[in-house]
Amino acid sequence: MSKPQAPIASAETGATPLDAVLFREGMSRVAGAVHVVTTAGPAGQAGFTATAVTPVTDAPASLLVCMNASGRSATALISNGVFCVSTLGMDDVAVADAFAGRADLNGADRFTVGDWRPLVTGSPHLATSVVAFDCRLTDARLVATHHVIIGEIVAMHLGASRPALIYRGRAYHALGG
Amino acid sequence: MSKPQAPIASAETGATPLDAVLFREGMSRVAGAVHVVTTAGPAGQAGFTATAVTPVTDAPASLLVCMNASGRSATALISNGVFCVSTLGMDDVAVADAFAGRADLNGADRFTVGDWRPLVTGSPHLATSVVAFDCRLTDARLVATHHVIIGEIVAMHLGASRPALIYRGRAYHALGG
Repeated sequence: MSKPQAPIASAETGATPLDAVLFREGMSRVAGAVHVVTTAGPAGQAGFTATAVTPVTDAPASLLVCMNASGRSATALISNGVFCVSTLGMDDVAVADAFAGRADLNGADRFTVGDWRPLVTGSPHLATSVVAFDCRLTDARLVATHHVIIGEIVAMHLGASRPALIYRGRAYHALGG
Repeated sequence: MSKPQAPIASAETGATPLDAVLFREGMSRVAGAVHVVTTAGPAGQAGFTATAVTPVTDAPASLLVCMNASGRSATALISNGVFCVSTLGMDDVAVADAFAGRADLNGADRFTVGDWRPLVTGSPHLATSVVAFDCRLTDARLVATHHVIIGEIVAMHLGASRPALIYRGRAYHALGG
């Protein structure tokens, strides 16, 4: 614990948070599994690509997603009260791109890319995903620009074992078998 | 959206959540970056290995960690009000093991493994990490057995570019350069 190293970017303790551009640069070093979060119901069908997904507790089985509050998907998801998280495999790059808006598709049109099938809540899961978690929304909280949502898992799809799709350094990678 | 596929594990809509063992099996398919979360202050120095870390917003720069509420580290972190997230590289497996309790080390003794140096909040960061985020705790909320904590980032350490340490299928993997 000797020789404190000067951080490359810093602010005084208790002062303003780190600059957003520097933060995004730092976060680009962090590898993340690539997921597509979908919803279906009275508010319509929608979905978006996300890496900000983590488990919360295993009893009850629950997970958490951070999503941009300004998107159409966020509004639909919260209104529908259900969502599904599909974790992508290395062959699902076109799906990741479509649901990240890179194919210029919006709303239900995004589901023309990939093989989507409803699970128990009616939210679509990707048939080729390595795993998918079908959730009932139990909590949504606004934190600045994002909603932190928690879902209790009511059904799961276990896909075939295959390499995972990872995002790191602003590029896709394949991991393992 | 035709031909609904029967999920391998399911429950009725709105019924009980998925069994914990099945959930952990599903989550083992999801690749995650490996981090060590540390804290230091009046409540002492502590740390634990975690994969449940995600960014929340970039303005302010903030991130979220899910941590077991029953651990000594959780108590210390919340009392200290500061923490640091160090994202591990492929050569940091011994550190990941030590902070996961696999080396039978507890409390401050865990810091004998790895090169730890305080950042701005006083929380130690791993000098060999690919990136480290030094945080002021802004929110802690209990969800069943876990605390969901959010921190505003006040300093960052950008390490040398090197392969990341990933956990998937209950094993460590190296990713990229």
